Amino acid sequence: MNVLWILAHPEPRSLNGHLAAEGQRALRAEGHRVEVSDLYAMGWNPVVDPAGYAHDPAERFQVAAAAKQAYESGALSPDIRAEQEKIDRADTLVVQFPMWWFGMPAILKGWFDRVWHQGYAYGLRGPDGEWIGYGDGFLAGKRAMAVVTMGGPGWFYGARGIHGAVDELLFPLQHGTLFYAGAQVLPPVLIFGADRFTPGEGRTAAKELTERLLAIPETEPIPYRTQNGGDYDGNLVLRPEVAPDLTGLRAHTA
Amino acid sequence: MNVLWILAHPEPRSLNGHLAAEGQRALRAEGHRVEVSDLYAMGWNPVVDPAGYAHDPAERFQVAAAAKQAYESGALSPDIRAEQEKIDRADTLVVQFPMWWFGMPAILKGWFDRVWHQGYAYGLRGPDGEWIGYGDGFLAGKRAMAVVTMGGPGWFYGARGIHGAVDELLFPLQHGTLFYAGAQVLPPVLIFGADRFTPGEGRTAAKELTERLLAIPETEPIPYRTQNGGDYDGNLVLRPEVAPDLTGLRAHTA
Repeated sequence: MNVLWILAHPEPRSLNGHLAAEGQRALRAEGHRVEVSDLYAMGWNPVVDPAGYAHDPAERFQVAAAAKQAYESGALSPDIRAEQEKIDRADTLVVQFPMWWFGMPAILKGWFDRVWHQGYAYGLRGPDGEWIGYGDGFLAGKRAMAVVTMGGPGWFYGARGIHGAVDELLFPLQHGTLFYAGAQVLPPVLIFGADRFTPGEGRTAAKELTERLLAIPETEPIPYRTQNGGDYDGNLVLRPEVAPDLTGLRAHTA
Repeated sequence: MNVLWILAHPEPRSLNGHLAAEGQRALRAEGHRVEVSDLYAMGWNPVVDPAGYAHDPAERFQVAAAAKQAYESGALSPDIRAEQEKIDRADTLVVQFPMWWFGMPAILKGWFDRVWHQGYAYGLRGPDGEWIGYGDGFLAGKRAMAVVTMGGPGWFYGARGIHGAVDELLFPLQHGTLFYAGAQVLPPVLIFGADRFTPGEGRTAAKELTERLLAIPETEPIPYRTQNGGDYDGNLVLRPEVAPDLTGLRAHTA
């Protein structure tokens, strides 16, 4: 595998730092190539701004259009372009973060906001001029997996736990972002109770993570429904005969 | 009302800028007080870092503990403290943003990450020593409403639309963050198709927004289930007799 590992944690001496180091070590020991975007270590700027897209701030900043134009004219800022080159070299993305307020830390959210812009990550057409997305896109043929630590115990994030079911909390990332872009999205590695880990629990978690990482090529992806596979109508609404009794996020998984 | 309006958009000459200006003007015209945190205009730093919590970077940075200690010892960075003072002065929060990758722009996510830290926004106990959250917390007695623009048409975000039902996409913010903190969360103002707005549509959206804003005191909140109201067991899992046939995010709305 050629892995791009995107990490968002401010402290290398944390559980997340330990898991990242151990996971990357295990992949390399098996001959896989690993590039790392350690966003904190890089001092990544997560804020979409005119400078990233070489936009004249005197003119109205229409984010999507400005980004597309900068991309097509080769005027993207070097930090954005460097991340795109890493993505393009990879066949596998690992996205690792602690869940803060039920989402990604801002530094990681802004990696997607800035790097995954119109013309590169969305607004794309297929060979017949059709709009593509959800199962086809710039990550087609690649795999992606989230590695997420959470402070609370697992039952808080269960099917009827108070925080909400974790697969639905991760839907914006896993379905709306990674699967939208065309990646095969593998079930996430979830590490609960991360606030109170003992060193022994950290070792157990690193071992489980390593097993999941090495199994990436054989792991069944989450069976999200593809945009152009027949389950959706022309308005991209599920056809009445598809999962007729379901509404909400879960209806989009076959 | 004493409104704190948190805005996350890089361009004042945008639809979002127009809606913010019109909404604030209408509130003030009716005698309401409005403070604004225009995160882009403020140059808000969204990245959780040791400096925000006066933490010595030579020592391991445990985010939650460092933040709590800085808060209790009065060592928070002035930008964080200023936001907390604005929140404490307000009785109503308006959170306005364009939906990017099915969530908040990084600059706004990082407003929550940095300002809503342990000891201020979570990890709180009630008068009898019980943990509080979901319906009670530092926003108890206040109201909150999200104002969200989205590029796609509304049916993409409907109960069976491909992007996922918008109330579930907003669950991490509305339930996991605002309601967790104790606010009464009102149904959001949703503006679809924002990428292709005409000036006339902008005026219509501003009028609808204004009506919703002025109606905040009389608007019924989303009936999320409270943590300590009897619907959850001691593990904070829904009791079997509560919405027995439901799992997932919707089970948490009565």
